[in-house]
This record gives sequence, structure tokens and C-alpha cells, in this order.
Amino acid sequence: MRFHTRKWIKPQDLNPNRTLFGGRLLEWIDEECALYSIIQLENPKTVTKYMSEIDFKSSANEGDIIEIGIEVVKFGSASITLKCEVRNKMTRETIITVDKIVMVGLDENGKPKPHGKTQVEFVKDRLGDK
Amino acid sequence: MRFHTRKWIKPQDLNPNRTLFGGRLLEWIDEECALYSIIQLENPKTVTKYMSEIDFKSSANEGDIIEIGIEVVKFGSASITLKCEVRNKMTRETIITVDKIVMVGLDENGKPKPHGKTQVEFVKDRLGDK
Amino acid sequence: MRFHTRKWIKPQDLNPNRTLFGGRLLEWIDEECALYSIIQLENPKTVTKYMSEIDFKSSANEGDIIEIGIEVVKFGSASITLKCEVRNKMTRETIITVDKIVMVGLDENGKPKPHGKTQVEFVKDRLGDK
Amino acid sequence: MRFHTRKWIKPQDLNPNRTLFGGRLLEWIDEECALYSIIQLENPKTVTKYMSEIDFKSSANEGDIIEIGIEVVKFGSASITLKCEVRNKMTRETIITVDKIVMVGLDENGKPKPHGKTQVEFVKDRLGDK
Amino acid sequence: MRFHTRKWIKPQDLNPNRTLFGGRLLEWIDEECALYSIIQLENPKTVTKYMSEIDFKSSANEGDIIEIGIEVVKFGSASITLKCEVRNKMTRETIITVDKIVMVGLDENGKPKPHGKTQVEFVKDRLGDK
Amino acid sequence: MRFHTRKWIKPQDLNPNRTLFGGRLLEWIDEECALYSIIQLENPKTVTKYMSEIDFKSSANEGDIIEIGIEVVKFGSASITLKCEVRNKMTRETIITVDKIVMVGLDENGKPKPHGKTQVEFVKDRLGDK
Repeated sequence: MRFHTRKWIKPQDLNPNRTLFGGRLLEWIDEECALYSIIQLENPKTVTKYMSEIDFKSSANEGDIIEIGIEVVKFGSASITLKCEVRNKMTRETIITVDKIVMVGLDENGKPKPHGKTQVEFVKDRLGDK
Repeated sequence: MRFHTRKWIKPQDLNPNRTLFGGRLLEWIDEECALYSIIQLENPKTVTKYMSEIDFKSSANEGDIIEIGIEVVKFGSASITLKCEVRNKMTRETIITVDKIVMVGLDENGKPKPHGKTQVEFVKDRLGDK
Repeated sequence: MRFHTRKWIKPQDLNPNRTLFGGRLLEWIDEECALYSIIQLENPKTVTKYMSEIDFKSSANEGDIIEIGIEVVKFGSASITLKCEVRNKMTRETIITVDKIVMVGLDENGKPKPHGKTQVEFVKDRLGDK
Repeated sequence: MRFHTRKWIKPQDLNPNRTLFGGRLLEWIDEECALYSIIQLENPKTVTKYMSEIDFKSSANEGDIIEIGIEVVKFGSASITLKCEVRNKMTRETIITVDKIVMVGLDENGKPKPHGKTQVEFVKDRLGDK
Repeated sequence: MRFHTRKWIKPQDLNPNRTLFGGRLLEWIDEECALYSIIQLENPKTVTKYMSEIDFKSSANEGDIIEIGIEVVKFGSASITLKCEVRNKMTRETIITVDKIVMVGLDENGKPKPHGKTQVEFVKDRLGDK
Repeated sequence: MRFHTRKWIKPQDLNPNRTLFGGRLLEWIDEECALYSIIQLENPKTVTKYMSEIDFKSSANEGDIIEIGIEVVKFGSASITLKCEVRNKMTRETIITVDKIVMVGLDENGKPKPHGKTQVEFVKDRLGDK
């Protein structure tokens, strides 16, 4: 699993008990899945369709740095299924895992749009760049 | 199911495709479950422990008004299990459903704290008020 | 008066004295009046025209849950006049009251648009639903 | 009346009709009154106690620049009464006026704290600075 | 240098060390420069092109009131060069200075648009108003 | 240069001209530098001290995905000097560069605190992990 995006937990991300607000964490995961899928499917109109069960394993505190990892589970015809883990950057402790997140690419009429992708691609390869 | 909190979808709640950002919706659901549980368990230190699978049935647009419904599935010894549905206030169309959300009340050391509750209570009854 | 929307006071809603920031409270009231009026007038282009005096009776603290109540005072030809109270959900203590809030429905040119409504309607009745 | 703080209306400040969200405007006014009072009363624990009626005279659009003006109406023993006007910076058109906003300075126990002030002071005079 | 906009440092503006988050401060400066330039160039499509080195001289704490000062360094053909200082309103201590910020007015195609301005103008003079 | 954190440009990140608000971009850069430095210096109390000139090379639009890259320029006794580039994830076009950002680790009294680091470390090595 590759961990890219990192977040620094600031006062505005806390719940009144002063731990990381679960709603903020879900928001961050959804954003990361969306942008990961847009890159892979090369379709900016990609939406969240389904999330499997979410297990909140541990919490995080103000000032902690967390990182969000994404892995592709499979490619469907118009969809991509992801797996996500969020962990504490310094201790590697797992904060949350979601085994299956289905993202669907849509066409202009909001219907699923086949993407023809079958494996993870890197932007550098598309651009013929290093 | 009782629907209380209502939200008016504003520009800051949209994704770049100009529909309701899924992450914002998850944030709203988590907040509603937290406050509902705090009221029921009478414990301000109540956290999200688990969410079952989430099905994004339809989306919502800028200017739509949505309402968030919560129902108790069962009371555990330190936990409460909720069911949640978000729907469009004007059309009653379902936007998202989550069948099982487990919220746990904690004590001062962060350990599960038995609450002794077995059924839904209304604040007005606790206060002997109308 | 019916109390629907509930808010959980989080760190981002506080002033530097660590009580609920008055500006946030006014923002929540304005949003609730807007969405209530949109539902009643069935006109998404409904704006705040006037608020009568506002009395800040008590404050609220981080972690408190508040609820916002709205009641119709009267229907004008293009407007609706509301009354609003915000109270602490757990103690029923009143936080703020506003006796008269005039909301006006506009047409496409931004002119007041008669709505023909004379009493409160419920969406379930409009939909012939339970 | 002196106009200090300026705001540039950005997408996150709009309502779904794409004009300035009234709730955001009220939030800005409350913040400006708070900071103005803190400077005058030299008491960081100054809260909003009362606002007289609010007249929304015109709206504002995305990209508009507005400025917020404050004037002291009178000094009470623990309070200060302000008058506020918000206007469009480029056209000078009035957006909103509030004739009377009562701010109260509190002591450590949350009780009104006499401030001994009877007229507007400038920080530069306090500091013996230009 | 004229100091206009004032900010009251609230919990949402802090970093996890509970001092003013540097990123928020940079956001405020950029907004102030943008709106100042829009007023001077009378062009709403004015963007930040360059900032010279930024020296963080001191920090600020929750509840502090800061003010943002802008001064014109020079007018280019399509640009305006500003100088900015942010200071603590109560103590006049400097928080940050930026000696040179170049803002450019663009035309509809996003190309630099000559503005014909050579000196600071006041809106009241443009409007023939006091 | 390693690019980690990614952002999806949403409506709330735009200026009124509907391109990425420069202030938001500076906020993101400051956050990324802070968390990168905290990881390297193993000191949560790390603050921004200085930024060299900032060149806004191109803009970004709603829906674009950007990535933020950081590289260490040198280690001082209590500081770390970074270089930052933000680019469009899909096209690799550079949006902004900052050649020199000095972050300083502080001790409990807010004084610079020597860190003894001389080269970039990876958390996995510290943890003896893969």
C-alpha cells in the first residue's frame, strides 16, 4: 500500500473531547479515494458509490501527523475498488481501515462510463517522464 | 425513524463536479450519530467505533435541503447501535443509508463505560417537562 | 415551537474565551430560517430581509448540544415571518431568542414573489406520504 | 463612522443562490464588534449581549469587496453600545445596518466588570506612539 | 502604511502548538493584497504573481487582535507592487513583514491588462463623495 | 524531490475568479513544511521562520489535483531548510516554487532547540520496519 497524503491534526479537526473528529477523518478518506480514482480512471467525474464496513481501531490527537494509504483491489468496467488505511505517521499505528471502497466514473449524463483500465498506472509513465 | 437535523447544501459542501461532496455527508452523519448517542447515553465522551457498509444511493445538489434520520438498533452494555438514513427533505428520496453504526461511551481513562440504558429516552421526560 | 436541527459545539465554533462564538450562532440561525422558509414557501430563492432584536440570554460551551426551534408568526404575500429560539438540548436552557425574522421569496428578477401560502404545510402531506 | 475590516466575497461565503450568505455576514459583524470592544474596553473577555433589529438593505455578490464600519453609541458601566454598517467598498451601497449592539466586558467569574471608560481611545495614544 | 483589516485569532486559526498557524496568516495576507489591488486597479481579475522573502518576526496567540497594513511600492503597467506588515493591534509588535508583493491585473484571456494608474486613489474621490 | 500530499481543488478553495485562491495554496505549503519538519526533527514544536521569494508560475482550476513536493536543502543546528514545489498531478506543470523555507524547532521556552540531525531519515528506519 502506498501512503501519500499527510495531514497535521489541528484544533479545527478535533471533536469536543479533543481527539480527532471521526467525521473529519471520513471526509479526508473520501477525498483521497476520489482523487486517487480520478488519476487512475482519468475521469474527473468519479464518485463514491459504496464503502464497506469501517473499523475505528485507534484515535489520534492534536498535533499528530497521519498518512492515508490507498491500494487498488480491482478494476470493474466503469468502477475501481480501493482499500484504504490511515495510520499515525510517527508510530505506524493503524487508525482506521476500510477494506472496500467502490468509486465509479460517470459520463456526462451521470451514467457509469467504461474506462478500459485494468491496472494501476503512474502519471510519469503516461507523460513519458521520469 | 426520526429525522431531526437539516442541512442546506451550500457551495462549500460541493465537490468539483458540483454535487454534494461525499466526505461532507459522512462528516454530517458522524456528527449526528455522536450527538444522538451523547443524549441517549448521557455521556459526553462517546466515540464512533464501527460503521457497517455505506450505500450511496443518490446524490444531492447545491441548494437542496437534506435531513438526517437516526434510529436505535440496540443498546449494548457500554455501546449503542444506530441506523442512519439521509434523505432529500423535499422529495423524500434516499441519499445514503448506513445500517449499523456502533458508538461507545468511554470513561475518563478511555475505557468503555457501562451506561445502564436499555431504551430510548426523551430529554423532556428526564426533565419532567413537556 | 418545533426543534429540529441540532449542533454539537466543536473547537472551531468557539471564540477565544472558549465559549460558543456568537457569530457562529447567528450563522446557524440564519441557515435554519432559510431552509425552513424554502420548505414552506416552496421557493429556493428565499432571503433574509429583517431580524428583530436579538437577546443573548446565556452562552454554551464546547461539547454542548444545542437545538434550534422555529415557529411561524405569520404569512405575508411574498414573505414569511418566523420566531426562533435556540436552547441547550440537555438542560433546555434558552441561549438566544429572536422574535421576528422576515424571510422573502424572490422571483427570477430578484423581486418579491407572492407565494399564496397561508399556513404551515408538512412535506409528508404534499407527497401524500406517511 | 470608521470602516476598517474588509472582506473579499469568496465561493465559501455564498448561499446556494450565489449571493452573500446572510449568516456569514452576521458572523463577520459579530467578530468585528467583539474585537472593536476588546480594544476599547481593554478586556479580552467581552461578549455580545444584545443586537437591535437588523435590516438587510441590499445583497452582495461573489468577488465584491465589503467593509465593516463601527461607531460607539455610548459607554455603560460594564458595557459599550455600538452601531454597525456594512457597505460595498466600491459603490458605497449599504448592505446591512444594526443601530445598537451591546457588548459587555466580563470578569473572571463571568460577571459584568466595570471598565471606567467614557470615550473612544486610540491604541497609538495609549502607547504614546504615532 | 495604512492598517485596515483586523482579525481576532480564534481556535480554528491555531496550529497544534496553540499559536497562530503560519498558513492562516499567509492566507490573510494574500486576501488583503488581492482586495487592495482590486480596489486600486479597478480590475476584479487581479492575481498574486510574486512575493519577496517573508520574515516571521514574532507569533500571535489565541485571542490576540492583529491588523494588516498595506502600502504601495510602485505601479507597473499591468501590475501593482505592495508592501505588507502584520502587527499586533494592542502592542504594535510586528508579526510578519513582506517587502514586495506583485499583483497583476488580467484581461479576459488571462493576459496582463494595462491599468493606466500611477498613484493611490481613494474610493471617496472616485465617487465625488466625502 | 518527493511529492506526497495531494489536494483536490474544491469550490471552497477558489477565489472569486474561480481559480485556486493563492492564500489557500500558501496555507497548504506551510502545513506541508511544518509536518515534514516535525517528522525530520522529531520535535512537534517546529515553526516557520522564513520563506524566500515565491513565484506563482501558473494557476490551477476547480477539480485539478495538485501535489506538494518537499526537499531538504540543509540542516542547521536548530533548523531545517526546505525547498518546495507544487505541481499539477496530471500534467506535471509547476504551479509555485519556493526555494528556501527555514523551519525552526523550539524548546519548551520557545527558544531554538538543537536537534543533532544531519540527514534525512525515514520513519521506517527508525522503527526498524519495512
